[in-house]
Amino acid sequence: MEKVAIAVLGCGRIGRMHARVLARHPRTRLIAVYDVMADAAAETARELGVQAAASVAAVLADPALRAVLIATPTPTHVDLIIAAAQAGKAILCEKPIDLDMARVRACQQAIAPLAPIVMIGFNRRFDPSFQALRRRAEAGEIGAIEQVVITSRDPAPPPAHFVRDSGGLFRDMTIHDFDMARSLVGDIVEVQAMGACLIDPAIGAAGDIDSAMVQLRARSGAMVHINNSRRSAYGYDQRLEVFGAKGMLIAENRRATTVRASLGAATEAADPVLPFFIERYAEAYAAEIGHFIDCLANGTTPATSFADGVAALAIADAALESMRRGASVRLD
Amino acid sequence: MEKVAIAVLGCGRIGRMHARVLARHPRTRLIAVYDVMADAAAETARELGVQAAASVAAVLADPALRAVLIATPTPTHVDLIIAAAQAGKAILCEKPIDLDMARVRACQQAIAPLAPIVMIGFNRRFDPSFQALRRRAEAGEIGAIEQVVITSRDPAPPPAHFVRDSGGLFRDMTIHDFDMARSLVGDIVEVQAMGACLIDPAIGAAGDIDSAMVQLRARSGAMVHINNSRRSAYGYDQRLEVFGAKGMLIAENRRATTVRASLGAATEAADPVLPFFIERYAEAYAAEIGHFIDCLANGTTPATSFADGVAALAIADAALESMRRGASVRLD
Amino acid sequence: MEKVAIAVLGCGRIGRMHARVLARHPRTRLIAVYDVMADAAAETARELGVQAAASVAAVLADPALRAVLIATPTPTHVDLIIAAAQAGKAILCEKPIDLDMARVRACQQAIAPLAPIVMIGFNRRFDPSFQALRRRAEAGEIGAIEQVVITSRDPAPPPAHFVRDSGGLFRDMTIHDFDMARSLVGDIVEVQAMGACLIDPAIGAAGDIDSAMVQLRARSGAMVHINNSRRSAYGYDQRLEVFGAKGMLIAENRRATTVRASLGAATEAADPVLPFFIERYAEAYAAEIGHFIDCLANGTTPATSFADGVAALAIADAALESMRRGASVRLD
Amino acid sequence: MEKVAIAVLGCGRIGRMHARVLARHPRTRLIAVYDVMADAAAETARELGVQAAASVAAVLADPALRAVLIATPTPTHVDLIIAAAQAGKAILCEKPIDLDMARVRACQQAIAPLAPIVMIGFNRRFDPSFQALRRRAEAGEIGAIEQVVITSRDPAPPPAHFVRDSGGLFRDMTIHDFDMARSLVGDIVEVQAMGACLIDPAIGAAGDIDSAMVQLRARSGAMVHINNSRRSAYGYDQRLEVFGAKGMLIAENRRATTVRASLGAATEAADPVLPFFIERYAEAYAAEIGHFIDCLANGTTPATSFADGVAALAIADAALESMRRGASVRLD
Repeated sequence: MEKVAIAVLGCGRIGRMHARVLARHPRTRLIAVYDVMADAAAETARELGVQAAASVAAVLADPALRAVLIATPTPTHVDLIIAAAQAGKAILCEKPIDLDMARVRACQQAIAPLAPIVMIGFNRRFDPSFQALRRRAEAGEIGAIEQVVITSRDPAPPPAHFVRDSGGLFRDMTIHDFDMARSLVGDIVEVQAMGACLIDPAIGAAGDIDSAMVQLRARSGAMVHINNSRRSAYGYDQRLEVFGAKGMLIAENRRATTVRASLGAATEAADPVLPFFIERYAEAYAAEIGHFIDCLANGTTPATSFADGVAALAIADAALESMRRGASVRLD
Repeated sequence: MEKVAIAVLGCGRIGRMHARVLARHPRTRLIAVYDVMADAAAETARELGVQAAASVAAVLADPALRAVLIATPTPTHVDLIIAAAQAGKAILCEKPIDLDMARVRACQQAIAPLAPIVMIGFNRRFDPSFQALRRRAEAGEIGAIEQVVITSRDPAPPPAHFVRDSGGLFRDMTIHDFDMARSLVGDIVEVQAMGACLIDPAIGAAGDIDSAMVQLRARSGAMVHINNSRRSAYGYDQRLEVFGAKGMLIAENRRATTVRASLGAATEAADPVLPFFIERYAEAYAAEIGHFIDCLANGTTPATSFADGVAALAIADAALESMRRGASVRLD
Repeated sequence: MEKVAIAVLGCGRIGRMHARVLARHPRTRLIAVYDVMADAAAETARELGVQAAASVAAVLADPALRAVLIATPTPTHVDLIIAAAQAGKAILCEKPIDLDMARVRACQQAIAPLAPIVMIGFNRRFDPSFQALRRRAEAGEIGAIEQVVITSRDPAPPPAHFVRDSGGLFRDMTIHDFDMARSLVGDIVEVQAMGACLIDPAIGAAGDIDSAMVQLRARSGAMVHINNSRRSAYGYDQRLEVFGAKGMLIAENRRATTVRASLGAATEAADPVLPFFIERYAEAYAAEIGHFIDCLANGTTPATSFADGVAALAIADAALESMRRGASVRLD
Repeated sequence: MEKVAIAVLGCGRIGRMHARVLARHPRTRLIAVYDVMADAAAETARELGVQAAASVAAVLADPALRAVLIATPTPTHVDLIIAAAQAGKAILCEKPIDLDMARVRACQQAIAPLAPIVMIGFNRRFDPSFQALRRRAEAGEIGAIEQVVITSRDPAPPPAHFVRDSGGLFRDMTIHDFDMARSLVGDIVEVQAMGACLIDPAIGAAGDIDSAMVQLRARSGAMVHINNSRRSAYGYDQRLEVFGAKGMLIAENRRATTVRASLGAATEAADPVLPFFIERYAEAYAAEIGHFIDCLANGTTPATSFADGVAALAIADAALESMRRGASVRLD
């Protein structure tokens, strides 16, 4: 099986992580990395033994290149998607596509005639436990899904300056949970959101929230609760509960070891949960790449398509509106 | 220590359960039971070796009687509370006080000059696990409370005719969860509710819902999520999660045994959770009585006072309004 | 249903515990307590509102008395069993019957013609979790039993003077585990034992051990491992694992609450396990009494008969011999 | 960091597994594979894009080669160790070194003057959970170790012909547990073993057992229990419990996902445990290689040295003798 030649645009934390996955992945060949900060690109290139490209144009000009992974700052996503599509490359782009729905729609129209394979990086769908849960639910093990509870808490708040450009908690963080909700119960038709700044006043000063609860109604009738916090003392809390007519499936947190301590004051104490996304979703990131390569090989639409990116952003926008207006917002 | 002489009004399922607890309790002496259905009273009286009273008046006329436990249908609560208060008896009344806030306020005013000891039967506050969780949270173990997740699912839906007189899911079932929320985070100032009829169309036809998600905001800033279902295949699902600045406390479900089975297809499989409130809250009901007797002995206000009954009903009313209007409802 | 009139001989810790259970039990009527220390008897009698008998003879002379519970020091058991049997009373005697097998056999012969109902207090058989496990294993859920692991660790070592008269760890403590092994896999034919004094040198100085591992072979072919310690920092560790051709059943420890704490350093930390036998086996002691009353009512042999007491003691003696000789000891 | 050039001798199941690990490992360069069955070598070589060597001599003649991994049948280990040592290569050899202690000692003497780096493949020591447990115990978290319980059950019995050449369960399977015991409590001075053929009569006919219980005493005074079965319906059961003066550490089994199902009949049911060593110890095998490379780089003796291989085999021999003689066997 030939390895797919791929380049990474953006060598920040998440770009480097992806580059490392691609460099090791049995089905990909990382051939270039690029970052507007030449140093970051050079360092990643050196680490992985690949070329640091001089420009995006240089990357896209390589006829051997089959696909790009876009991990640059969000405001650049739309232009890079369009450029890559025009160059005939397949695209795996980090979420969110953009913070502005109008720009997202414009991008969608711009690339439509080119029919590129575009996948959005909703990595959590590819987590083995979440995937197993979804497959079992789809197979009917718990009957019709009636309620979903998504727990999603980051270990520590980002710096306030990050928050300022992030589009806010719903578009930056909850967007993963909105996508997860859609993957389990389908189209969302109603959103009720409640947010607060309980952790870091600087986040509030930057106009954002750091704690949130959202409830969604799906067209199927199922209801979804999401809770978010920007700080979790015990690690990156990522759990899923799906309740149906015949029972319940839960995907618990993951830990580095299976050790349990029973001492005087407490028993069966486990490790902290895995610290953050790089550890928690290591397997998911590799599986995400595998799915992307499958789609390239078979010409199929990714499970997390451009349309899924649009849909998740629409829920995020609705959540923001719901929170601001103190009202349910309908999406249909 | 002298045992407190007490009578039970109402010999339905919950009344009989209370009568049995009172008959066995080391600090109470059950001296009479009453039900408008003389047969029900006679049967309970026979079982427990006590007197079946001919009327409420006869019960209250007994000078030896110190307290009554009111477990009659909800519409009779207000009149019985007033009658018992006028007879100088302490009162332990099942929730809800009444379905109509105006009647509840009127009752409150009527008994105010008599200053009776009135306790509302929010039994879950007295569950050893929930109590331990609350005490540890109050002691600061997890820092300031930021989020609460209350899971509360009945094993099977009630008959539709019951639903018709129940005041609806929020006033009948969620009211316990509203009280639990208040006991953990204090006054509630905002309510967002979403309901659906996903289980039994007859419940919908009777004008009620059988599935719900509610989110509350407390004056403290904390947010609370409640999920309710009228049917749970694996038993009476009663869990509590409290998340704070320093960590999280969870109270898990209870089971009849600690046995875990590892067979071919699945491992560590536990028993179903305890089937319903009589089993699940057996210890809580006994502790509730203990607290009531303490209040009588010390002249203190119960932890679940008339005012708590009013507050929980106010949240239920707000939830109903929120669901109907599709808007956040403020309570302050 | 008439309540069975019963008396308790011995008002030490375990005797008082039994007396309390009998005083509350729905099927028994505690009518007297006795102890050679008149003060202990008087205190227990006062607490429970019963008579403190002046002598064993006075207790047994009461024609209303149907049964005695013997909770006196071990050396007095044999004489009391014989006296009670001669008085025509049913007998529930704490383990062990005696430390000396010859005396036990003589007792067995002495009472044989009287055919009394004699039950030995192997309380653990009546623990709901262990009982459920055994019933499921007997029903074939895990196929033929091949291996059993019994974990049995006391919270804290007894005083050395107690150890001196106890008959040693195998006869005093492990005897419960030997009985549990027999209840699961039947007759034991081979014993290998290893002991050590790792906790309290005073126990070693008194000629006993405080830590032990034993392995047994049953006639069925099944193997059993028992581990014992006289000190467990996290509470009274009482677990059972049964492994068979089709899977495994485990009975886990019990805790006061279901609370789990996730803090910075550790997650899902549970309470200490229940502290000691009075808490851990509260339900078992009540069920044991229930079984005894059933046997009286139906004239059936108790599940933990005199013969079971003999068999468990025989294994204890074999374990002691195995440890001393450094050899397997055969029991058949 | 330069990658260490290494070759794999033996391309059976375990050899291929190692070859795959070495081919992917960031610190090794797999340069050749060899098997006496040329087809097996060729297939592995093709899969991993390396050379299939024509002979062991050809492998060892390569001056670039730094180390060999020996995964051939046990009877060939000794000769290959000597040959590799004489060729100046470092050696990572699968357990056991040999089934015959005299040959093992002779090998030890033969290579002593060459002072090669020799590591024995006791992979379990490198399991992250077992390693974390040991480190925490060594750091004193549970005080002095008093008792160890090792559960080690294979998913399914090997074919009887394999058993015939395996040296028997103690030398083939329990040897891992003996090494684990030594890694936790140090030198073993006494062994009591009990075996049975409960699963497959063909194993008994081949002169072996398929079920065993062993207890060990360490020089430190600590006691160790090991239970083994050649068949476990729920997967490869690999657990560790270490009990000490201040508490207990347990390493639980591992599963493919964290999903828990609560259906009508059972709740919190988890996946089967990982099926067998390749899945269960995937991380351990990679860490084992890492440790071996560290030892090469630093010239240090591996944590699982030749001497450890000798010591584990000595316990296995003692266990066999104990089982046959029905007696404790001393090792000091």
